[in-house]
Amino acid sequence: MTTGSENLDRLCINTVRMLAVDAIEKARSGHPGMPMGAAPMAYALWTRHLRHNPGDPLWPNRDRFVLSAGHGSMLLYALLHLTGYDLPLEELQRFRQWGSRTPGHPEHGLTPGVETTTGPLGQGLANAVGMAMAERHLAARFNRPGFPVVDHRTYVLAGDGDLMEGVCHEAASLAGHLQLGKLICLYDDNRISIEGSTDLTFTEDRGARFRSYGWQVLQVEDGNDVEAISAALREAEADHARPSLIMVRTQIGFGSPGKAGKASAHGEPLGADEVRATKLNLGWPLEPAFFIPEQALQHFRTALERGRQWQAAWEALWLDYQRTYPELAAEWNQWWQGQLPQGWDADIPAFAPDAGGLATRVASGTVLNALAGRIPYLVGGAADLEPSTKTGIRGGGDFSAHDPGGRNIHFGVREHAMGAILNGMALHGGLLPFGATFLVFSNYMLPPVRLAALMGLHVIYVFTHDSIGLGEDGPTHQPVEQLASLRAIPGLTVLRPADANETAEAWRVAVQSWGPVALVLTRQNVPVLDRTHYAPASGVARGAYVLKDPAGATPAAILLATGSEVHVALEAAQGLEADGIPTRVVSMPSWELFERQSEEYRRAVLPPGITRRVAIEAGSPLGWHRYVGPHGTVVGMEDFGASAPAAGAAGRGGSR
Amino acid sequence: MTTGSENLDRLCINTVRMLAVDAIEKARSGHPGMPMGAAPMAYALWTRHLRHNPGDPLWPNRDRFVLSAGHGSMLLYALLHLTGYDLPLEELQRFRQWGSRTPGHPEHGLTPGVETTTGPLGQGLANAVGMAMAERHLAARFNRPGFPVVDHRTYVLAGDGDLMEGVCHEAASLAGHLQLGKLICLYDDNRISIEGSTDLTFTEDRGARFRSYGWQVLQVEDGNDVEAISAALREAEADHARPSLIMVRTQIGFGSPGKAGKASAHGEPLGADEVRATKLNLGWPLEPAFFIPEQALQHFRTALERGRQWQAAWEALWLDYQRTYPELAAEWNQWWQGQLPQGWDADIPAFAPDAGGLATRVASGTVLNALAGRIPYLVGGAADLEPSTKTGIRGGGDFSAHDPGGRNIHFGVREHAMGAILNGMALHGGLLPFGATFLVFSNYMLPPVRLAALMGLHVIYVFTHDSIGLGEDGPTHQPVEQLASLRAIPGLTVLRPADANETAEAWRVAVQSWGPVALVLTRQNVPVLDRTHYAPASGVARGAYVLKDPAGATPAAILLATGSEVHVALEAAQGLEADGIPTRVVSMPSWELFERQSEEYRRAVLPPGITRRVAIEAGSPLGWHRYVGPHGTVVGMEDFGASAPAAGAAGRGGSR
Repeated sequence: MTTGSENLDRLCINTVRMLAVDAIEKARSGHPGMPMGAAPMAYALWTRHLRHNPGDPLWPNRDRFVLSAGHGSMLLYALLHLTGYDLPLEELQRFRQWGSRTPGHPEHGLTPGVETTTGPLGQGLANAVGMAMAERHLAARFNRPGFPVVDHRTYVLAGDGDLMEGVCHEAASLAGHLQLGKLICLYDDNRISIEGSTDLTFTEDRGARFRSYGWQVLQVEDGNDVEAISAALREAEADHARPSLIMVRTQIGFGSPGKAGKASAHGEPLGADEVRATKLNLGWPLEPAFFIPEQALQHFRTALERGRQWQAAWEALWLDYQRTYPELAAEWNQWWQGQLPQGWDADIPAFAPDAGGLATRVASGTVLNALAGRIPYLVGGAADLEPSTKTGIRGGGDFSAHDPGGRNIHFGVREHAMGAILNGMALHGGLLPFGATFLVFSNYMLPPVRLAALMGLHVIYVFTHDSIGLGEDGPTHQPVEQLASLRAIPGLTVLRPADANETAEAWRVAVQSWGPVALVLTRQNVPVLDRTHYAPASGVARGAYVLKDPAGATPAAILLATGSEVHVALEAAQGLEADGIPTRVVSMPSWELFERQSEEYRRAVLPPGITRRVAIEAGSPLGWHRYVGPHGTVVGMEDFGASAPAAGAAGRGGSR
Repeated sequence: MTTGSENLDRLCINTVRMLAVDAIEKARSGHPGMPMGAAPMAYALWTRHLRHNPGDPLWPNRDRFVLSAGHGSMLLYALLHLTGYDLPLEELQRFRQWGSRTPGHPEHGLTPGVETTTGPLGQGLANAVGMAMAERHLAARFNRPGFPVVDHRTYVLAGDGDLMEGVCHEAASLAGHLQLGKLICLYDDNRISIEGSTDLTFTEDRGARFRSYGWQVLQVEDGNDVEAISAALREAEADHARPSLIMVRTQIGFGSPGKAGKASAHGEPLGADEVRATKLNLGWPLEPAFFIPEQALQHFRTALERGRQWQAAWEALWLDYQRTYPELAAEWNQWWQGQLPQGWDADIPAFAPDAGGLATRVASGTVLNALAGRIPYLVGGAADLEPSTKTGIRGGGDFSAHDPGGRNIHFGVREHAMGAILNGMALHGGLLPFGATFLVFSNYMLPPVRLAALMGLHVIYVFTHDSIGLGEDGPTHQPVEQLASLRAIPGLTVLRPADANETAEAWRVAVQSWGPVALVLTRQNVPVLDRTHYAPASGVARGAYVLKDPAGATPAAILLATGSEVHVALEAAQGLEADGIPTRVVSMPSWELFERQSEEYRRAVLPPGITRRVAIEAGSPLGWHRYVGPHGTVVGMEDFGASAPAAGAAGRGGSR
């Protein structure tokens, strides 16, 4: 027996399916299988559970929805359009076209309601863990009895590919450990991936796996059963101590007579004949394409009024909160806007000159703490390397299931999840997150670093042990190519300060940046330069600056260096001057910042007329030729390092 | 009651512990905690289970032992020395010193008996999965009734850090799926990581997790109980259908009164006082350092005679096999030496000129199959992208639990594990492995790519969808910085061929290389050049070559390009020539190969006198200035791409 409401459900679900099918057909490109199979669970979530307001996609207390299986982007675009976000039908008709707001994979910042950029598998789920952590942290710090001003859930829709990726394992394990009860993942269990059945390669007991992480695991046997999905969501929502995985058994490409349940439904348009067959099969009008039944649209659009009411209720609560806790409310506004407090840099020390030196990681720890005292929304931690990266916030407490207000996060040996979680925290809003590991292990987390850059997220990476100078741990721990890898990422600012005071300036840049910043720091001590003899460290903000010029002579040569090698350059300059070659030393902590300066400034630092140039950096020479030119030399590492005390360490194959 | 044999066990175990403690103390650097805690399980394995021959570390049928927790390197060096490998005590005394064979983390190729380079956590366990897969594959292809010529186990010793890393999750899931019964992992369950107790961040039910992957999970409650460890190893060895995880509860830094069970035992020398206290506590003579009781040494050194006998028995079997199956035996020798068979390249086609074009990924698929027919030890697969990367071997069969002789491996959406498994297969010997994914997802697998380069392993990566030219999938799938990242890795050869015939040449280079090679290929069609008008594609082997020179004129400008942009360069050259500028076009598929050519050749291709140069590549410009010089221009991507059909796609921020 079918009830009227069941008919309406089906109508709405088929509307989503057919919008996806038609858009992909028109674009001649896309992934129809997932939206067709997962439409019912998405419908159940979006119409009965998700507390959002299509009229204000930025309402701070909205539930977050992450489409981790980003290739199913048309599912999300259909939902956004239908529930009343500012995404007109014309945009769906321009799916995957130049300049549209409906790109192949969802892009945060481009499309209202898209909470994060997804596509690279596993990232979305890990972002969601970060969002749920941000929510718990902010709730712990702002909520007061009777004032749950931060109180929302984070929902994810993930597929087999997400669950296979290592980053998902890492993040899910941490989510279970932290008992993120407001994190709920709908798993589109369609048992098909690109190469065919998941029997080919993915036969683990996924439910048992998530239970082993401390998750509640629920099953829905029929992916078209909206009531069962909704019941499972209610059960998930009722468990406050465990994140939930709802395994929904679906059929990829549901409704397509020729492709349902097959890998061929995954990544290409159905084709005109199969679109027709699918519409006939589902009782859908063949024309027009992009047909939206009025009844379905009306039902979806009730989200606008519901959303308005939810937000209005929250705003009433907020007004009351503001009256009761005016200081907290003011602080919230500041956090939320990422607006640095008055005097945020007042405690940053000036480091006294010290020939014996200080590792820049140690200086960084001091500066981080000076900032953390003034910027209360600065939170973060390390991938099990805090004692080495010096990234602990003293007195900040540990973020844990029982104390989610702690500012020090123990990510575990999970660099990849750390990166993706930082993205999720930044996306949530209200926090400035940082994460730390050894520079060589930035390799483990490049995918989320790239996504942070693509999204322009304000995230700070602290990468220490930045060269062969780390010594005995050997080539597996000695970065060589990592600086080049990071510099090649568009939108990421990389800073490798030369001493303690440059490190302080680098942190200044980092907290004021609008995109991601990587601080690259030494393990070993380096001299703290006497700035009465050298240019002030504030030059860091310009990316490169003249640290020292020959006294009373025009320079005939330029030495460029970053980080620990700036001290090598200063020594070399002395030698050259003794040989009668007046030499300029340029400290160049950040290529990206330097490239943003005026041409005039850049020519003043590196006058085109001075062609005798040497760049010195204990890393791959890749990219330096841009600054030294054809008559210049790059002293770098063309091979891996070796295990030995730092004083004796050098490249295996020599340097050039 | 203690028996004599128990006393001997304890003496031997303490010998291992104290060698580690003394070496780390002498080096003033290292990780004593793990060797002290894990010495009993390592002792049990090495003296009672591991079938190896210290006299011939390269015996093909030896059991493999992988120290995944590579920071415990002194444990391995102690075992190698004590059991009689060519690693004199003097080398242990030079732990972590310049030029020693005992670097901070174990390095394959440097120290006899070190099966793989470890240190970056999770990699070793995933390498071991690759070794076990290689063993199963070779056994399926060579063993005959009564002739188990390939028949060994792969043992791993892993710690908490290994188990937390995503790559371990991915690889363990695949190992369970493939029912790798001869893979056995001893898990040093000491519940301490660098930041402190694993309670801080790692509370998942690890046993349940591995069971969910299809592993047998065994427990040993007392990490000092050699009999219990040995019993668990026997049980693991008896299960032929499941890999086994033996969870051995240990105490980090066992024996140290002040540091046992504490994070402080992990990563720094005990200190002179604590060394003394530990020796007193364990009843060990305070002097000399590096003390080895004669009785312990004798017991360990029985490994030499046992190993000799095992290998002799295998060699007798092998002789018999050689007589019975001479052709198979000859083939084995060829595989094992990685010696290309006669006529290996006979089926590589010459692609006919075709202006309509062919995607280089498609050409690659054709060439791969031409090679696979002639090189039977070429095996591999994709991270769930075989239909897109065109890397299937037709008729090769699927590698599965029931048909491990299949040559097509379904890695699943597990790029990171794929990379580490390829390393393990190459390390095992007998196979030439390849793995494929989209170029942008090379990010997910950089750590094992780096290790392949560091070890000089012959592994081939097929990275397709190599630029914004892939179109609609958008910026999450469009590589920009990946070429620079790969080129920056010392020892990796990167090739981006311009057309089908260059692709064939690139594969030629790849199968003849001795280190890792990355082939970077287009999704979209590119013209197949008419080589009667252009220089032959064999120039690929030299990294860069003059594809076209102006007719009857000295070039006044040079255009350099790789891959799909070579065709852009050819068009641009036509335009320039029409404007009266005679222009040379250089196809430059591989910087690394070009740099290996003589200076004479390099100057012939890029004459220093021609300073008007433009490099064109749809990727980060990083590094190109080396070739275009200060008067040159790089047309590259300074920003991310966008989602649109390829014909209309371009960088967001323009190019320069």
